[in-house]
Amino acid sequence: MKTIALLTDFGLSDNFAGVMKGVILKINSRLRLVDITHKVTAHDIAAAAFLLKGSYKYFPKGTIFLVVVDPGVGSKRRPIIIRSKNYLFVGPDNGALEPAACADGIREIVAIENKSYFLKPLSGTFHGRDIFAPVAAYLSKGKKPNVFGRPLNSLKQSGIPSPEVSKDILKGEVVYIDRFGNLVTNIDEALFKRFRRNSNRRFKIKIKDTKIDSLAGSYEAVRPGKPLAIFGSFGLLEISVNKDSAEKHFRAKRGLAVKILL
Amino acid sequence: MKTIALLTDFGLSDNFAGVMKGVILKINSRLRLVDITHKVTAHDIAAAAFLLKGSYKYFPKGTIFLVVVDPGVGSKRRPIIIRSKNYLFVGPDNGALEPAACADGIREIVAIENKSYFLKPLSGTFHGRDIFAPVAAYLSKGKKPNVFGRPLNSLKQSGIPSPEVSKDILKGEVVYIDRFGNLVTNIDEALFKRFRRNSNRRFKIKIKDTKIDSLAGSYEAVRPGKPLAIFGSFGLLEISVNKDSAEKHFRAKRGLAVKILL
Amino acid sequence: MKTIALLTDFGLSDNFAGVMKGVILKINSRLRLVDITHKVTAHDIAAAAFLLKGSYKYFPKGTIFLVVVDPGVGSKRRPIIIRSKNYLFVGPDNGALEPAACADGIREIVAIENKSYFLKPLSGTFHGRDIFAPVAAYLSKGKKPNVFGRPLNSLKQSGIPSPEVSKDILKGEVVYIDRFGNLVTNIDEALFKRFRRNSNRRFKIKIKDTKIDSLAGSYEAVRPGKPLAIFGSFGLLEISVNKDSAEKHFRAKRGLAVKILL
Repeated sequence: MKTIALLTDFGLSDNFAGVMKGVILKINSRLRLVDITHKVTAHDIAAAAFLLKGSYKYFPKGTIFLVVVDPGVGSKRRPIIIRSKNYLFVGPDNGALEPAACADGIREIVAIENKSYFLKPLSGTFHGRDIFAPVAAYLSKGKKPNVFGRPLNSLKQSGIPSPEVSKDILKGEVVYIDRFGNLVTNIDEALFKRFRRNSNRRFKIKIKDTKIDSLAGSYEAVRPGKPLAIFGSFGLLEISVNKDSAEKHFRAKRGLAVKILL
Repeated sequence: MKTIALLTDFGLSDNFAGVMKGVILKINSRLRLVDITHKVTAHDIAAAAFLLKGSYKYFPKGTIFLVVVDPGVGSKRRPIIIRSKNYLFVGPDNGALEPAACADGIREIVAIENKSYFLKPLSGTFHGRDIFAPVAAYLSKGKKPNVFGRPLNSLKQSGIPSPEVSKDILKGEVVYIDRFGNLVTNIDEALFKRFRRNSNRRFKIKIKDTKIDSLAGSYEAVRPGKPLAIFGSFGLLEISVNKDSAEKHFRAKRGLAVKILL
Repeated sequence: MKTIALLTDFGLSDNFAGVMKGVILKINSRLRLVDITHKVTAHDIAAAAFLLKGSYKYFPKGTIFLVVVDPGVGSKRRPIIIRSKNYLFVGPDNGALEPAACADGIREIVAIENKSYFLKPLSGTFHGRDIFAPVAAYLSKGKKPNVFGRPLNSLKQSGIPSPEVSKDILKGEVVYIDRFGNLVTNIDEALFKRFRRNSNRRFKIKIKDTKIDSLAGSYEAVRPGKPLAIFGSFGLLEISVNKDSAEKHFRAKRGLAVKILL
């Protein structure tokens, strides 16, 4: 039984996610539907890209990711399918799919153009229901990506910023803030190790006026209310506050600089 | 495998929706549960009616809709089952079921009275768990509606307002506001065409002090921050703002007048 | 087909709950996943304990409850499995599992220690994904609790407060506030009856400066906007306001005293 995993900014107050599921089940009732989240901030493609990249590899091989954060719905942005080494991705070509698909190894990109698979009448505002849900459902029944349209050889990039590295400064930034207020940066553990020349040399992590000079193994490594730095569950450096919100503690927003100094 | 689709105002913070699912699975473990939404505003029967009507037809034939927005729980309002041409609806008779069931074609209405299908002890505050969930589960196992009680021949109406049409003015109103702040009116495309005498004559859409004189094909038809009118995914005229919230832009509430002038 | 029921404070905005489901399905694709809630207030173990105790018995026999409200993640608190008469419970040993497991009848407690069942690398911040989800998945495939570690013979208690009873005063408190603003106390119906000597003697329920001298059978027993007392769906005394929020009406917080006077 195939899994379709959904990631959207449709929220849970309206019927949008439920209706997409109805559309899918009408086409293929023998599959499993899993919500990654529907609460991406409205139109926040970068957050969708970040969450998809941090999720895909935990799902069974063959999972179809249906990712609809689509501020350009009805305009000229292309609906696409990406087949990667282990997965399929369906959604608008706006950068949300690219980091996960790239990380898994892209094998094929297809522009969704074959209208015989769309719902009729096609709305101008809800392609999640009218295009992406039915395409994902037909993929789950075994249709090959190339029946939906012509091959493409490029993708829109996500625009998730990369850290800047010089000899003594690694300059990253907050790229995601989770529900607990943890500040997730774009600094991964491999980069951090390379920057320290794979040695144990001392470092300082600087965020606003706070300096942190060690890595914690858990949130409880410091007293409640105190900040800490930890490589978190995304494999990225996070700034957290034990039993509190680092977002509030630092009045942080996405884009806030987090520097590592040797 | 039957589908039960749930639509409630129970929210997702408590255990109410989860417990209803437990009750259902205890009776029939071979079915599929899909959430339409649990985040209808508390006690907002009109919103439930609107969302159900905008959702039902996307679900597989035979789907059982379990709809519990029930401010009168424990009082004299009747628990009912409606069998329509393609679906079953279960919930309190307060108007939430009526527009969807009517649109699909009502075949049978039954008052739920047979207490042998209820959970014991029957609470006075959670008939979603104690009456509606078990009845939906037994329906999914093939029980006929008439085993649950006597036939009825009337239904409480939803009270969703209809537009007023005169020769030169079509007066509708905002009947739903979605999570993106789009203002959904009660003006459907067929009515709009009839009002224009199926011609291309010019029109003005008036909302507060703003006039819009064309229909957009997508949100991106206007610049970001600008208002537009579009027939949206409900098949109804919507007032939107590209990449922003029309709700905030117009400080709109449900009931706000939207007039079309020839 | 086994059911795994999830109860966490992960919220629905991030990918945490979805990723746990991916991990589970990778191990066992033939099971059913049901959300009780993911919106427990962050780190609120008492609320998790309360909701689990109010939910478990409505689920099919054999259900595995995966309960992760885990402020001590990565520190010395123990990951455990509890086998009770009818169910399995998996999560950190912090009091969240105890009331439900106790009520069902504890048969076996096991410390989760066998790292061969963990995800690698094991993070310090997301044991829901790396430990509890895979253990629940292996349990659902039929693994016995004792393969995961050594037996334990004690559990952390939940700390849900008990009411104080004297001859003429029963002193309870608000232990949970639901999404409708109903104030759920720790006074159950059996205790209330015993306190009244199983008679019909008169009583007063006192909350702040308000006195209520009867029990309602439904919310509509009083006029809209008026407070009432009712034994609600948890089997506990609740203070409610018809068609409004008792939380707002009384400016109530958890811990607010609710006294019954003869």
